[in-house]
Amino acid sequence: MAAAADPLPSWNDHAAKKAIIAFAESVTTNGSPDFLPPDERIATFDNDGTLWSEQPMYFQLAFAVDRVKGLAPKHPEWKDRQPFKGVLEGDLKAVLAGGNRSLAEIVAATHAGMTTEDFAQIVTKWINTARHPSTGRLYREMVYQPMLELLAYLRAKGFKTFIVSGGGIEFMRPWSAPTYGIPPEQVVGSSIKTQWEMRDGKPVLVRLPEIDFIDDKEGKPVGIHSHIGRRPIFAAGNSDGDLQMLQWTTVGRRPSFGMIVRHTDAEREWAYDRDSHVGQLDQALDEAGQRGWTIVDMKKDWKTIYPAR
Amino acid sequence: MAAAADPLPSWNDHAAKKAIIAFAESVTTNGSPDFLPPDERIATFDNDGTLWSEQPMYFQLAFAVDRVKGLAPKHPEWKDRQPFKGVLEGDLKAVLAGGNRSLAEIVAATHAGMTTEDFAQIVTKWINTARHPSTGRLYREMVYQPMLELLAYLRAKGFKTFIVSGGGIEFMRPWSAPTYGIPPEQVVGSSIKTQWEMRDGKPVLVRLPEIDFIDDKEGKPVGIHSHIGRRPIFAAGNSDGDLQMLQWTTVGRRPSFGMIVRHTDAEREWAYDRDSHVGQLDQALDEAGQRGWTIVDMKKDWKTIYPAR
Repeated sequence: MAAAADPLPSWNDHAAKKAIIAFAESVTTNGSPDFLPPDERIATFDNDGTLWSEQPMYFQLAFAVDRVKGLAPKHPEWKDRQPFKGVLEGDLKAVLAGGNRSLAEIVAATHAGMTTEDFAQIVTKWINTARHPSTGRLYREMVYQPMLELLAYLRAKGFKTFIVSGGGIEFMRPWSAPTYGIPPEQVVGSSIKTQWEMRDGKPVLVRLPEIDFIDDKEGKPVGIHSHIGRRPIFAAGNSDGDLQMLQWTTVGRRPSFGMIVRHTDAEREWAYDRDSHVGQLDQALDEAGQRGWTIVDMKKDWKTIYPAR
Repeated sequence: MAAAADPLPSWNDHAAKKAIIAFAESVTTNGSPDFLPPDERIATFDNDGTLWSEQPMYFQLAFAVDRVKGLAPKHPEWKDRQPFKGVLEGDLKAVLAGGNRSLAEIVAATHAGMTTEDFAQIVTKWINTARHPSTGRLYREMVYQPMLELLAYLRAKGFKTFIVSGGGIEFMRPWSAPTYGIPPEQVVGSSIKTQWEMRDGKPVLVRLPEIDFIDDKEGKPVGIHSHIGRRPIFAAGNSDGDLQMLQWTTVGRRPSFGMIVRHTDAEREWAYDRDSHVGQLDQALDEAGQRGWTIVDMKKDWKTIYPAR
């Protein structure tokens, strides 16, 4: 057989890349003791910090901040009222001081009250124009080139690839297909409730200011079960929010593959783990050795971070 | 071009069959004004009464009845307590007299308390052995042959086919792929809550006696949006429970196709509509003409009902 082109050209030829390829070959090679038919080849990926960056704040929070600023002229009262005052003045500390209640208020003001189709348009416009404050890139250009290659490689091997993120399901769906090759029906995320209405004779779904489901930590296996209905054999994450998804995928189950992206590259991306407020990686890192999860060291394992522009 | 084999051999060459083929051709023929790329070709099918029979009671209720009988030796108190007493004595009227509260008690006793994997095994065992009281067929042999052909035809035309049912999502998933060619991740249904647990060092999801989501009527567009994330262009149902799914799919949207299976065949299946407690078809029938939905008359349109044994 002729040597195939390298399917993961942005990965250095270190242990992580070798482990990924060895696993993919073992479950897809006919006659291998670990061979699995295509319908068992379910792979789930966290989004924030695993497929794209998440610093200095989750990009969906940047979206919410931009929405608050855009809506502020219609809400003069926000100038004097937290958490909106803090958002408008760039005082994130004041916002975060309000805890979950503040975040819920921001979500309600920026993510609810419109139809699902209007929200998709708002997200699409933002993702195609908003730029990251320090890199100057569009946010959607801050996806990880090596992970794009991994997604494509697994799909070429007959895997069905899913996003399983703590982020909003409807925030990700409008751009997941063009960005990651993952269609809307393969995106699992947190959600708010929606309500059916006939408006002027046309059916719409209206987004309500009420949390429906949080797809994080223990919620990830629940979300996977609800949307996919079977267990993954491959899961990739980067934080303690992914711990239960990694356990659900790998503990006591062979063949399976667990992977953690470690943010070790302060020059090309960011370096953070146990003490970070965003994407904290602590308990999952402790468990990785015991569970046999593959640690991807961004600085050492990846030749490039973002796609060429 | 050589004449292709008939893709719908169990359908008589009447208006319904012609409308289905004309629609499928119009959205899949390059250069057609209604052409849609494959990723827009989402088709959703109700299950009870649309893909398989639902008389004299929803088959999932027959499953619950069998579960109550199987569990009764461990619950001697059920002999004197409704709704279980009614189930054990075959007095369905007494059961239904208790309304939703009785049904919720039966669901809690028969569908909850075990892990998701144990429940899938219980369902699999039942679906492979339980027989319908009047036909003597396995329940899973009471699927409609013409609908199996329609599912396969649409998939051959690049459609992704989904079940969107008021039935339990985890009741359908264990057998949807071998029966309908629809994998678990393309099944949408009603659900109860599940909870993540580590049991003896192994992760499990435990089914809780608490309703999570009812995928019926206004719930169907909500369920479609949550699981699929885009609107279908083809929807098939048979009762008023499918009205909002049909509206969501077709009202104000072209190209689109709405279809209602009418139970008109008292000899080969059952005949019922406006006055039936199971699968009532009233308002959706009134709207069908105005909306341009295709009515499939089981007696006239279908050459055969069930697959050959």
